[in-house]
Amino acid sequence: MAVGSGNLPELHPVAGVRLGVASAGIKKPGRLDIVVMDIAPGSSVAAVFTKNAFCAAPVQLAKRYLADGAPRYLLVNTGNANAGTGEPGLQRAQQTCEKLAELTGVGSREVLPFSTGVIGEPLPADKICAALPAALADLRVDNWLRAAQGIMTTDTRPKAASAQLDLGGVSVSITGISKGAGMIKPNMATMLGYVATDAAVSQPVLQGMIDRVVNRSFNRITIDGDTSTNDACVLVASGAAGNALIDSEQHPLYATLYAAVEAVFVELAHAIIRDGEGATKFVAVDVQGGVDEAECVQVAYTVAESPLVKTALFASDPNWGRILAAIGRAGLPELDVSKVNVSINGVLIAENGGRSPAYTEQQGAAAMAPEEITIAITLGRGAAQATIWTTDFSHDYVTINAEYRT
Amino acid sequence: MAVGSGNLPELHPVAGVRLGVASAGIKKPGRLDIVVMDIAPGSSVAAVFTKNAFCAAPVQLAKRYLADGAPRYLLVNTGNANAGTGEPGLQRAQQTCEKLAELTGVGSREVLPFSTGVIGEPLPADKICAALPAALADLRVDNWLRAAQGIMTTDTRPKAASAQLDLGGVSVSITGISKGAGMIKPNMATMLGYVATDAAVSQPVLQGMIDRVVNRSFNRITIDGDTSTNDACVLVASGAAGNALIDSEQHPLYATLYAAVEAVFVELAHAIIRDGEGATKFVAVDVQGGVDEAECVQVAYTVAESPLVKTALFASDPNWGRILAAIGRAGLPELDVSKVNVSINGVLIAENGGRSPAYTEQQGAAAMAPEEITIAITLGRGAAQATIWTTDFSHDYVTINAEYRT
Repeated sequence: MAVGSGNLPELHPVAGVRLGVASAGIKKPGRLDIVVMDIAPGSSVAAVFTKNAFCAAPVQLAKRYLADGAPRYLLVNTGNANAGTGEPGLQRAQQTCEKLAELTGVGSREVLPFSTGVIGEPLPADKICAALPAALADLRVDNWLRAAQGIMTTDTRPKAASAQLDLGGVSVSITGISKGAGMIKPNMATMLGYVATDAAVSQPVLQGMIDRVVNRSFNRITIDGDTSTNDACVLVASGAAGNALIDSEQHPLYATLYAAVEAVFVELAHAIIRDGEGATKFVAVDVQGGVDEAECVQVAYTVAESPLVKTALFASDPNWGRILAAIGRAGLPELDVSKVNVSINGVLIAENGGRSPAYTEQQGAAAMAPEEITIAITLGRGAAQATIWTTDFSHDYVTINAEYRT
Repeated sequence: MAVGSGNLPELHPVAGVRLGVASAGIKKPGRLDIVVMDIAPGSSVAAVFTKNAFCAAPVQLAKRYLADGAPRYLLVNTGNANAGTGEPGLQRAQQTCEKLAELTGVGSREVLPFSTGVIGEPLPADKICAALPAALADLRVDNWLRAAQGIMTTDTRPKAASAQLDLGGVSVSITGISKGAGMIKPNMATMLGYVATDAAVSQPVLQGMIDRVVNRSFNRITIDGDTSTNDACVLVASGAAGNALIDSEQHPLYATLYAAVEAVFVELAHAIIRDGEGATKFVAVDVQGGVDEAECVQVAYTVAESPLVKTALFASDPNWGRILAAIGRAGLPELDVSKVNVSINGVLIAENGGRSPAYTEQQGAAAMAPEEITIAITLGRGAAQATIWTTDFSHDYVTINAEYRT
């Protein structure tokens, strides 16, 4: 199941970035499971990675290699996460990078590896290496849709977003893809996300941009509260558009580009939630009136991850008592519950910490019926705000995750 | 569903404590939904209550009244939590206490109210008051089993535990009941638990005892991570057994009594997990080798509440990668993953942060097959330990919680 149509917009090619897709037969024969991104020399590349202490072998390597300088290739495989695989896992990831470097004539540390799939199985590096020539032969600037398909695992549909804007008189494109449907509570990045623009941005500014933008997009979503070992997100700026180089956040073009990049990231993050495992609802939990953003995020996550709230969402049951109970256990010091209000899709359900006098169950049922739900919470103790996006908890979630390996 | 036979042991009467049960028709006609506990004058009474900021009206009153002195009656209703009900909720709870006080000739602040059931509905105080004479007529010392039945909500079976011991030459009984199957991650108490002994213990020592014992029992269980608004747990010591008064923790009889009380509390806490909503597994998550108990608890809860670990448990799938991923996101500073081991029912599955070389999937499948599972985690960074008990996440959990109100 998934929420919304899933129709993708036109995906604008990004000059300086080509994508190649192939099938290495990692988990299932014939399935697209290898994506290679070719990045033109001179591009800036920034990335964020999972904070999970058990970060996968490719994450460890990608972080090291990126610290050495701009990569020329990204190599992504699905079907195998190469996580919890110890020293052999590092060697196998390295082997695939070396092979791609050899085939393309770049340094082996100019290839960043990324993996997603089952944890703890040995990476079939030989299969991946064997499929690399096919992926390289497939490199094209207009291959974003196939690349989005090539990074899917339990995703039911490809996820991509794209924008064009005028940046100081030149036309700039931003296009990105993402994947993920379970084990989703990114911590500094989503499961996998790749966004490229042909704008010219210096690497330090690009890194600052991705750090900021993930905290408004991928780091504000949760499906099941489980943080992946393989989360990674990359932002590439090829500079091919020819705008004046954005080399500081005070640059006159920075704000315009940032806004467009954020819109693409948010769309990609939303696409993950819409395709959440077993999802029948797309839910925004919007918390206002907190002392600071951190406590708003804390309340929003506690509500968004409550199994009782999630099963009530699945049932389209306006069970506001479960929402209040979740707010009450979020750990806010000295929360005055008599100032707390809760609305669902604009219907004021709980007021001053209890049932709103004007509220009727019929109103609640109508408010909970749509696929898209906004739970708006006001805490009445400050001016801060945060929004988290999530899904409901359905029978299909249990089925998908009870049967994933079998 | 539930795990284990659910057969109850012999429930020893506790001299000085009588129980009466009645049907007030709060939610369903004919169902036992009122329990009155009559406590002999001179008894010590200690209690712990939910830390949820949205604590229910009866919790607020019971805390206030208990601070005034030893109560003579506990009044418990199911079917309605009287939570999120504001000032009218307090008045209705008070009304039931006053009625019971009037019928028994005690002060109205000598009656502690407790409620469990749906949040946010007005308490039908008139129905409860009308049923009190029947409950009082039913008061008996050997009524523990019916009282256990009388406090059930979504529980599929009554929960009780009992012990007898020799305490300095006199025979002492300890008997208790508990309820709860969902919205279970008690924070200083379970959903509802009532334990009585005829041992003589001073009130301050009894309060210290319940504070300590809940941290080894009810505060170490989780079904869904949702903390109730109505959690409350009461420990009564009537003194009728005639032992020398235990008036300090250094008293020679304290340790003997504490051990027996803890065993009863642990059994009651386990009974809640065995009857967890949709439970097909009874799971102990045992974390050893932490720097302190707090971080062991943190890791154990992160694993125990991971929806991905819980669905794998439901599937009897030894998906150790999900366990490692949960440990990795538990937020331990500078966790060295290469020192982490994970065993399931004695089978070493993950060693030094990766798959154990000797481990086979057949071993894992065999280890996961039983109803009772122990996940043993060693962190290799200290000497502290903690155990949390939990359940799996099944289709029935979703069904029960999607349909609870409808």
